[in-house]
Amino acid sequence: MNELIREPITARWIIVPMDKTVEVSDLITEQVPKTKGNCPFCYGGEVLTPPEISAYRKSGGPNTPNWSVRVVPNKFPALRIEGELERQGVGVFDLMNGVGAHEVIVDTPDHFRDMADLTYAECEEVIWAYRARSLDLKKDKRFKYILIFKNYGRSAGASLEHPHSQLIALPIVPKRVHEEMEGAAKYYDYKERCVFCDMVREELEEKERIIYNDDRFLAFCPYVSRFAYEIWILPKKHASDFANIDRDSVASFARALRDSLAKLKGLLKDPSYNFIIHTSPINGHEREDYHWHVEIMPKLSKVAGFEWGSGFYVNPVLPDVAAKNLSGVVIPEK
Amino acid sequence: MNELIREPITARWIIVPMDKTVEVSDLITEQVPKTKGNCPFCYGGEVLTPPEISAYRKSGGPNTPNWSVRVVPNKFPALRIEGELERQGVGVFDLMNGVGAHEVIVDTPDHFRDMADLTYAECEEVIWAYRARSLDLKKDKRFKYILIFKNYGRSAGASLEHPHSQLIALPIVPKRVHEEMEGAAKYYDYKERCVFCDMVREELEEKERIIYNDDRFLAFCPYVSRFAYEIWILPKKHASDFANIDRDSVASFARALRDSLAKLKGLLKDPSYNFIIHTSPINGHEREDYHWHVEIMPKLSKVAGFEWGSGFYVNPVLPDVAAKNLSGVVIPEK
Repeated sequence: MNELIREPITARWIIVPMDKTVEVSDLITEQVPKTKGNCPFCYGGEVLTPPEISAYRKSGGPNTPNWSVRVVPNKFPALRIEGELERQGVGVFDLMNGVGAHEVIVDTPDHFRDMADLTYAECEEVIWAYRARSLDLKKDKRFKYILIFKNYGRSAGASLEHPHSQLIALPIVPKRVHEEMEGAAKYYDYKERCVFCDMVREELEEKERIIYNDDRFLAFCPYVSRFAYEIWILPKKHASDFANIDRDSVASFARALRDSLAKLKGLLKDPSYNFIIHTSPINGHEREDYHWHVEIMPKLSKVAGFEWGSGFYVNPVLPDVAAKNLSGVVIPEK
Repeated sequence: MNELIREPITARWIIVPMDKTVEVSDLITEQVPKTKGNCPFCYGGEVLTPPEISAYRKSGGPNTPNWSVRVVPNKFPALRIEGELERQGVGVFDLMNGVGAHEVIVDTPDHFRDMADLTYAECEEVIWAYRARSLDLKKDKRFKYILIFKNYGRSAGASLEHPHSQLIALPIVPKRVHEEMEGAAKYYDYKERCVFCDMVREELEEKERIIYNDDRFLAFCPYVSRFAYEIWILPKKHASDFANIDRDSVASFARALRDSLAKLKGLLKDPSYNFIIHTSPINGHEREDYHWHVEIMPKLSKVAGFEWGSGFYVNPVLPDVAAKNLSGVVIPEK
């Protein structure tokens, strides 16, 4: 028998099987083998990208090799940084010019090592780059939201195979974020507690779905996972804005993120995935009713007509089973 | 330069390029060739499905061959028809047992002819089956919404290749439908007109994006297409509930749907797609503020982190260009 579970933040319903589960071996889909070629994100490819925005490098000038993390404008941006924001009505529609920023964070110079393979120190650097770019773009008054995400593998929409993340600064708060903020605010109004803090507390009490747990960060397969092997990572101490993350938390977050990805890679043989940093809109103050976090969504099946038509998600793997299987994966500490 | 367009019903923003467009040849993705095997939806496979719910057949009894359209319960249903609806709270979550109906409409006995290849008369029969099953399930007081959709091709999540559609009767009105109803109701409150009727009027005036047009139905690439080559089909006369469709409208709707799919197939070399019938929840009366319609979503690219994280969609093909290309496709009238 299937059970329907309602997620309290966005009011999504998830359908999960209570009596059967899909085996790991049935979820594994082959990753296209990587081939290096003439990669713009490898050492020597610096001339193939637009001039860099920033980079961590020990020696040498901008747009030369020997960097460890490099940030460049997206060559085919969804939005462009130039111009003033203009909005107008056309019939029943609203039009706006495409002002925004679209940046690529190259996670590592090594074409063949994904975030799952990085050392903790290397992963920390990527997170410092996320933070630095967020703080810089927050100063631009045209922007209302900063979205940081990663597409890994073809099924997740990655068009370049060299490990990279993306950042998009948006001139409006997007609909998906609005919904999440509203849902969290409603919960807070009613309970006077943050819904994400409550989720952290419940997961720590139940101990059934935990992937990573230290003083500062918790990673778990949420009770309302939309996707098989979905993982959420949250700071344990309430914080609404990722960009305000402090030094100790960066170290802890890097371990939680890298270990979660390494366990997914180990168990499911290098699956495609998206991860998204969910953070509060740009407005200068910490919010009591919202809690920044990361959602990792492995792409193990296709989103089909039922999901599109309803907003329901059918998850064929109980999150308790997913967490148990992931916990069994031995990964190197490094 | 890209332009952002806001869709007035669900407040989604679509990013479209105003100065460049992706060529048809760059969008074509190969369909896995069909192989018949031991198909439960071909003649002779009737014993491999659960006993049929209904079928159109000229001779012979239930669960024998010689049918033209056949409706069976889904062998692996997301929801089950048995039992009373029970709802309970668990921590911050709501739980509900999986009561509902999940049916498969086998469009044709011919394994190798998709809906795009059917004659108009054959397509009409499929639509009569949609209608008959909707009317029957609407009598069940446990159900609040009936979702009819099709997944075609692997990228669209189809697991069986024999042409089929699906119907799911749900014990709650799903979130995605709620949003659309609310958006349409807000527009109606403000303008005292149906937003879909306004869209039909604008498309008919502009004449730039029309794929099919007769006395009763209009098919067009909407001005706010989320996906490349997206097509919407609407009845021209206001109607909120698909299940109330009359005889003449079934004939017209069948032509609009079959011709739209045939043009997509001809232009894009058999792309994967989902289509969904958007109709009003079960409540017994026609609504002034909602308008049933079909949304056809070709699966030509992956939904990636940006779309997941924002609810924005990046559509690389201007709908005017899509409609022009589709209009040029010659398809047989039959």
